[in-house]
Parts: sequence; C-alpha cells; structure tokens
Amino acid sequence: MELADLLRYARGDEPCDLLLSNARIINLLSGEILEGDVALVRTRIAGIGPFEARETLDLDGAFLCPGFIDAHVHIESSLVPPGEFARTVVPMGTTTAVTDPHEIANVLGLDGIRFMFENAKRRPMSMFVMASSCVPATHMETNGAVLESYDLAPFMSDPWVLGLAEVMNFPGVVNAEPGVIEKIRVFRDLVIDGHCPGLSGKHLGAYIAAGIASDHECTTVEEAREKLRLGMTIFIREATNAHNLRPLLPLVTPENHQRICFCTDDRMPADLLDEGHIDHMVRVAIAAGLDPIIALRLASLNAANYFRLHDRGAIAPGRRADLIAFHDLQAPRPHLVFRGGKLVARDGVLVARGPSTEPRALRSTVNVDWQKVDFSIPAEGRQARVIGVIPNQLVTEHLIEEIPVVDGQALADPSRDILKMVVLERHTFSGSAGKGFVRGMGLERGAMASTVAHDHHNLAVIGADDVSMRTAARRAAALGGGMIVAEGETVLAEVPLPLAGLMSNLPIEEVRQQLDHAVEACHALGSRLHDPFMAMSFLALEVIPSLKLTDHGLVDVDRFELVPLWVE
Amino acid sequence: MELADLLRYARGDEPCDLLLSNARIINLLSGEILEGDVALVRTRIAGIGPFEARETLDLDGAFLCPGFIDAHVHIESSLVPPGEFARTVVPMGTTTAVTDPHEIANVLGLDGIRFMFENAKRRPMSMFVMASSCVPATHMETNGAVLESYDLAPFMSDPWVLGLAEVMNFPGVVNAEPGVIEKIRVFRDLVIDGHCPGLSGKHLGAYIAAGIASDHECTTVEEAREKLRLGMTIFIREATNAHNLRPLLPLVTPENHQRICFCTDDRMPADLLDEGHIDHMVRVAIAAGLDPIIALRLASLNAANYFRLHDRGAIAPGRRADLIAFHDLQAPRPHLVFRGGKLVARDGVLVARGPSTEPRALRSTVNVDWQKVDFSIPAEGRQARVIGVIPNQLVTEHLIEEIPVVDGQALADPSRDILKMVVLERHTFSGSAGKGFVRGMGLERGAMASTVAHDHHNLAVIGADDVSMRTAARRAAALGGGMIVAEGETVLAEVPLPLAGLMSNLPIEEVRQQLDHAVEACHALGSRLHDPFMAMSFLALEVIPSLKLTDHGLVDVDRFELVPLWVE
Repeated sequence: MELADLLRYARGDEPCDLLLSNARIINLLSGEILEGDVALVRTRIAGIGPFEARETLDLDGAFLCPGFIDAHVHIESSLVPPGEFARTVVPMGTTTAVTDPHEIANVLGLDGIRFMFENAKRRPMSMFVMASSCVPATHMETNGAVLESYDLAPFMSDPWVLGLAEVMNFPGVVNAEPGVIEKIRVFRDLVIDGHCPGLSGKHLGAYIAAGIASDHECTTVEEAREKLRLGMTIFIREATNAHNLRPLLPLVTPENHQRICFCTDDRMPADLLDEGHIDHMVRVAIAAGLDPIIALRLASLNAANYFRLHDRGAIAPGRRADLIAFHDLQAPRPHLVFRGGKLVARDGVLVARGPSTEPRALRSTVNVDWQKVDFSIPAEGRQARVIGVIPNQLVTEHLIEEIPVVDGQALADPSRDILKMVVLERHTFSGSAGKGFVRGMGLERGAMASTVAHDHHNLAVIGADDVSMRTAARRAAALGGGMIVAEGETVLAEVPLPLAGLMSNLPIEEVRQQLDHAVEACHALGSRLHDPFMAMSFLALEVIPSLKLTDHGLVDVDRFELVPLWVE
Repeated sequence: MELADLLRYARGDEPCDLLLSNARIINLLSGEILEGDVALVRTRIAGIGPFEARETLDLDGAFLCPGFIDAHVHIESSLVPPGEFARTVVPMGTTTAVTDPHEIANVLGLDGIRFMFENAKRRPMSMFVMASSCVPATHMETNGAVLESYDLAPFMSDPWVLGLAEVMNFPGVVNAEPGVIEKIRVFRDLVIDGHCPGLSGKHLGAYIAAGIASDHECTTVEEAREKLRLGMTIFIREATNAHNLRPLLPLVTPENHQRICFCTDDRMPADLLDEGHIDHMVRVAIAAGLDPIIALRLASLNAANYFRLHDRGAIAPGRRADLIAFHDLQAPRPHLVFRGGKLVARDGVLVARGPSTEPRALRSTVNVDWQKVDFSIPAEGRQARVIGVIPNQLVTEHLIEEIPVVDGQALADPSRDILKMVVLERHTFSGSAGKGFVRGMGLERGAMASTVAHDHHNLAVIGADDVSMRTAARRAAALGGGMIVAEGETVLAEVPLPLAGLMSNLPIEEVRQQLDHAVEACHALGSRLHDPFMAMSFLALEVIPSLKLTDHGLVDVDRFELVPLWVE
C-alpha cells in the first residue's frame, strides 16, 4: 500500500476495511491493557480508537495482542513443509516464524532453502529465514551441500532474510577460523544468532565480541544469566527434545525481560498438536507466575525488536495487522487470528484460503548405490566402541563392549541390547558408510531406518540382523526418504518423507499417526524408549558428545576426531 | 581492528591495553550492578572479569557505566562548533551525540553539514547526524539553501548518518504532501525522528503510521503517554528554552521506560557550563526519585537501541569502550571518561589531545547589500499588527496597536515598549526585508541585532531608533555574523559568530562571557527579559504561533499565511 493511501485511512478520511471494536488492547509498548477499537486497512493497522469501517467485528471485551513470533525454529523438524506448518501454528497465534532451514540445506543446499521460501509463499504466516551458517556441521561427515560465505552472501539482499543462523561452530568463532569469521563478516550488518551450549567465561566473551547476538541453548538460569549480562538476547526454548522453559523462567525479571524471547527450535507433530506452539509457552509461563504482559512481550515484541522487524510486535498505527484475540489472560488461547489484516484462523482452525498444500516436487534425495551397501561388520578384534544411548538426552556414552563373532563377522547381541548401527551416505551414491554398535535402543529383533539423522541426514539404520536392516533401509530409499520399522523382509510401519527425506506431503495429523504407529512398532519389537526415531536421529550428530556415528565412521566428539571401531 | 585480533584479546591470549579493576559495573542490559573488572583493547571492550593487561587502573569501587548519548541536539545552539562542543560535554560523560545540523544547513546547505562532520573528526565524541528534513522550514522565508529528498539521499550511505531528522512539517506528513513523503520514502529503512508538539488523535496516528518513530516536543505526561502508546519513542528534552524533564518524569515507569530517552535539543553555553548536559538530566531525574538504573538507561542504552547503534550503550564484550566512572550513584558526576578505550576526560577536564580548535574557514554567510537596506517604515495606517513577546515562551501574542507617525514614517514608541523589528535577508544579497513592531523586549533606547534567528537565520534587528539598528546590524555583518548591542553609532557589546553567523571560534567559556555582557548591555538599555537574544531568535520562526516576522513580512502562524503590517 502506498504511504499516501495508508494516511488517508489513518486520518479517518475514508472508512477502513475492518474495525475490531470493544477490545481489551494489550499495549506491549507501554505495558498497559486499554479498552478500545482497532481499525485495519489492507495489511496494516490504520489506527486505534473509534473509526468508520466497512465492517465491524465486536470482540466483546476479548483481549487483543500482536501475533506471536517464534524466534528460532527448524520447520523441517515438524516433518511437514512451511505451508502445512503454517496451517498448524497460525491457529495457535503464531503469525511470524524466524526459521533456520539448515536441515534441508544439508540435503539440498540452496535449492532446499529456495523450496522452503516457495512453499511459504501466500501462506498466512510470515516466514523469515536466517541463512544457515554451518552446512555441513563438520568435516567428519558427508552431507548434501556445502554453503560457504559466498554462497550465503546473496541472501543479504533478500528482504525475507534477517541474518545469519545459529553459528553452531562456536569453537571456530572463538578461535577465529577464517571460514566462519568470513561468514560473520558478510552478515555483520544484520542479526547473527548463536548456539553455544555451556560456553562460559572468556570464550563466551569472545563469541559475543565476534558479534553473535543470541543463544537458545541455555539449560540453567546461571548459564542464561551470564550470557544475558554479557550482551546476548536469550531465546528460551521449548522443543520436543529440550524442555528449557520451566527451568529458565526464574531468569526473567522486569529489569531484564526485554532481552528474552521464546522459541521452539524443533517440535514434533505430536507436541504441536497436543500442546501447541509459542502459545503453549505463554500459557506455561503465566501458569508458573510470570506477568502476562511480560510473557506476551517474550512471545512477540521482544523478538520483533531483536530481529529489527519494526513493522510488527505491537498494536500501533502503521504496523502490520497481525493480531490475535483471546478471552483468558491467564491462559491465552486465540479464538481469532488476523494476519495482514485478514482473519486467518477461528477457534483453532485455519479459515484462510491458501495455495494447494501440494508442494512443488523436489528431486530425489536418497541416492544410494545398493551394489555398494553391505551391512556386515568384519571382526577386527573382540572389544569394540559402542554408542551408549541415554534416554531423553542427546549426549551419549562412549562404551567399550565385547562383541560376538561368528565366521569372522561381528554380530548384534540383542540379549545384551547391543545392536548394529550403519549410517549410509545417501546424497551422492558415494557408497560411504559408517558402521558400529549401539546399546540402549532396546530392539529385541527387527530394524529401524530413517533419513532424518542430524545434521547431514544420511540414512541411519539400527537393527538386530542384516536382513531386517536391509529391508528397512531399502524401503526408506524407495519412498524417497522416511522412517521405517521392519522385521525380516516385512515392513511393519513407515512414515514416508519424500520431501528431501525430511518432510511429508501429508497433513500433519496423518504424519503424527504414522509416526505413532512407527513408534508402536518399535515398542512391539522391544524398545522401551519414548521415541526411538528421535533418539536415533541424534546418534549421527557428531557435534554432541560423546560417541557418534557418521558415514565416515565413529566420532569421539570429546576429542573431535574419528576413532576406530575396534579397540583390540 | 580486525575481528580475529579482537578475539585474541577477548580469549585472554594476549594482555589487553587497559584493565579497569575494582569497578561496580552498571549492567544496563540485565539491570544489575556487579563488582568486577573491565578489559579494554584499542577502541573496544575485550571482556569482563580478570584479564591480563599492560596497564591497570584501580577504580576503587567507583561505578562504571556506558557513556551518555544525547538523542537529539542541534550543536549550533551551543554557539560553538562540534569540536568545542565535545570539549564541553565529553567531561560530563556524553560520548555520543545524535545531531541535527539544521541550523547551519539553513545557512550553508550541504556545505554546512559537511563543515560539522569535518569539525567533529578526531574529537573525543561520536557525532552522528540525522539528515535535516525541513530546510527551509516554510515557503514564507528566504533561507540559505533548499534540501530536497535527492539532496539528502546520498547521506543514506554515510555510516555517520542514522536517518532523517525531526520532520517538523507534521501537517505535511499527515496530509501526505509529496515532497515530505518522498523524504520519508528515501529514509524508510533508517530511523526517522519526529517533532509534533500537541499532535493527537488520528492525526498523530497518521504521523506515526508514516514511519515517524520519535518525538521530543512533549510538554505534558498525557501528551507523551499517548505518543508512547501509539508507538513513538519519547525523547525527554531539557533545553535552555524548554524545560520538559521534571514535568515528564512521571511518564517513566518500569514497564515503559525502554522506549524513553534523554535529549537536550538546544542548550546555551551558560546552561552547559553551569548545569551540565545529559549528566544534569540524570542527576535531576534521580533526585526526583527515578531509579538510577532506569535513569542511566534513558541516558545511554535506550538511545543506542533506538538508533540501532548496536556497538554501544552497554558494557559488554566487543562493544565500544565508551565508559564513564563516578562515585555517587544518586548524583552521577563522572570523574573519568573513556571514549574508544582512551581516557579522554578526568575530573571534568578534557585530557584528550585533539586537532587544534581552530575550525576550517567558512565562506562569508552575511551577504547583505546595504544599498538596499532601509530601516524606515512608511506609515500606511495607524493601527498595526504587533508581535507580543511572552517572557520565557516561544509563542507570541498577535496584538493590534496604534503606532506613532512623524512625517509619514512609523516610529518605535519605547515609552509603550513598542520597538521596530526588521528581518534582513542575509544569504543572497536579495534585499528582501520584513518590517514590523514588537512589544515586550523592553529596550528604552538603542538596538540589538543577531544572525541567529530560527530557522532561516536571517539578520534580525530590534531597536528604538534607526541609527542604533543600523549600527547593530552593520556590526553583525562586519563580524561575519554575531549578536550585537548598540546605541546610536556605538557598539556596546558583541558576540562574534563568524562560523555561518551561528557559531563562535572562541572557547565556550569566552562565548559565555561575551553573551553575558551582551545580555547585561540589553538590560542596561532597559530590557527585563532573562535573555533578550534567545527571545529575539524565536520571533522570526514562522512555525510557532501566533505572530512572527520573516524577511517576507509578518506571518500569522495560526492562519499559516503572510499578513499585512497595517490593519487600517
């Protein structure tokens, strides 16, 4: 809308499009709640107060608040693409998501990021992108793409790109490695997000001095307080695999809360559908005693300020008409959601018409040369390194165990909960494969396979026997990616993820059911883990201690180097 | 400094330049005061905590705080150029000034702004510029330059330019006049400051919807509260001619204070030297009961955030080492000031070596063709409009008075405190002159003249007789600008202002003495005004009601048009 047009409506010279009357307006700027009306014209707020409008919606005293902003989210972790993600979270009040598409970037590079942009178009949610900074995560893996500073630089001029995404390579920053410093240099005039679990003292100071402005990895108040004092904005995270909200709430005070935001990072379909999104965090925070105005600032204004999104985060003339209405200030649950001046959700259901949810086809991303695949592990000793799964944690134990050997071949030993694990490179037909053993998955028979394996997203397979493993792996490949449970030559359950091997093209409710069935199938095979696929997806992530397996082999993360499988 | 270099010091690998030890560090980010050390390297803060350093300065428990930021100041109003202004205010703790050079821009256009930049170089203060938006103020005057959007656009790429300065033409914004809208369009990605005294309701909403982000003209809490609620950042001003601080302090609450800053706008030498600068505002605010942390945020962090100066406003790794130390948290008075890591002032005195205070010569700006100048006013009636001075206010009364006439010439009547006033165009030898009468200046004889006459800064002359007026005016011209008091053919006092007719090239202490003498001379001639020159300087400003005189003639500001001198 031309500015001169907007001003005609703001002055009240012409009737606006829609008047939201009789609202209790939550003014996040002043920290007040004031009764009044809000006038909308096209995508904008024309003004506050009595206005003539072509249509009036009586809010009957409902609270009106700016739409929520997720400060950091990998949409891929919801197992659905941006359009379906929007359909899920917009009715929960999230009108803006600041995303890091680094899952798909590790598979498809810039093509993957473009896919996310395209799929987000004309959806009732603003999807901003932070340029993925760590693709690949390390040199000890084969992923699908390498993004250097010169690959990312063109994003600087994209209005939907706000900066550089979580710079997970914090040792590289602290030690001023040229590649990572160059990325920071390119993005120094935009926002640069951090990721530095446990970093403290001078090394934390160096990381911040480099220009890293936020962190979402805090697990304790002490950690968050140090980071906030040194200049970071703290994103409190409530992910499926990281429940930081309740432990971090004592951090928030009236004096410091302007520098704290909410984010979800990674949330699986069941959590989104059962608990919610940012709205869930707001409700939990208020129930725990946080002042509702402060909770809503964390959910909206503070992220807008941090990301320099000066057009949102508050109900004020000229800002975007991204608004939510709800009845209970103690437990906000939006019954109306407006995005860009249009009613897009009512009573938890999307009412906006968008493009068909059928996403653009992506090229096949499961590129495995099965001639080269062999699940056997020749015995080169008796004692082997074994990855020890710790339930509900991303860190693992670095175990040494005796492995049974038959005819020179090392075998799984389900009686001792020792299973085979193989990570097959799936991007380039290279035949690269890492092999090892894992304890704690609990399968007594059969196998599971998945193309979701952070961050390189190779094809991870765990099983009790080679036949089951091959069945699961080949089915995952045949589907173009997915999560599979198999026993012998029978597929027991599957979650097809044809979009880059990371996302489904089905509605999220169906994906959730498929995933529930797959987890049940694992349980039927003996696993006692809450979510064996979630657990497996992090066993290949070589930046979280202690022992992990990539297609290059076993990685001793504490020593940050590849190590042999056999110790004697 | 290269980032990799900074990080070596931040990590503690090499000794820093200076350690400020044993400080009570005021953490404006977290709202806490914490004991500790701060390490500096070159211009930056290397880290917080124990560091090795080549030099240690024991602060002995003094408070350490970020340097102050003046959010909006016309340096010209101090009657000295930026270098001398810095010498004055840096010892008071101001390390950053966001300036609008619109006084000199009205005289010298872009050359004037360049002069300010050049004079600010290598001084111990960061001088940022907001591009002057309203040059000239209106079409009812002759000034020295016209700045259109295309003149201002090149400033967009200057790192010392933060945005568009106070858009005083608020009716033009509200009514979407193309010229002013185009300036806003050009600067829409930077910060746009406002100036909208008394604006309210829908018109205020429209002004804000246009993208205007701040206002420094509030005089009441109610006015400021409405503006803040609608999205503006409020600059509380304490100027020589506008004392808004105490009346506005009740606005500030813990809930809203992040959106409030301090500014001085216009401060004369005596106020700067006797009271102080932003430090004075901090002391007054704390004495009035404001929490010191909040007061210091208003004086530093909040302005840094508003102007997107992410490198300052807090004591944190990587930020600029612009720091002040003081002993009394209840009345901060810096005994040490560091700017860019260097000690620049101690105990109220500048210790930094800068360039010579002798500014670059400017071309003559008092360009009057004396052949065309005539102070006589032919009588064309008996009743004339007379500007009525109201002591200590910028608004005037619109009076109608009988004027004595001798030989067809209208004369001053000092017995009734009616004096002649003439405004001589002084930029272009045009001979344009406005003539009228003023009541309330109090001169019983003699005359005063000044080239400081907002905003066009023509040569304003007020007097009891034509000879005195000519003497004062010609002396002002002979000096290249200044403030003059004369009686008959004798100059009684003078403040030479050879720099654009606005600023002196003498130390501010001498300027202050000259000005004191000039005011005393006015008092000796009968004036009872606190500062007759300040009063006169606003009698020519045709945007403040009710009756003003420019070189075009009398302006009825309420009707916003030129009006004849004689009413019958």
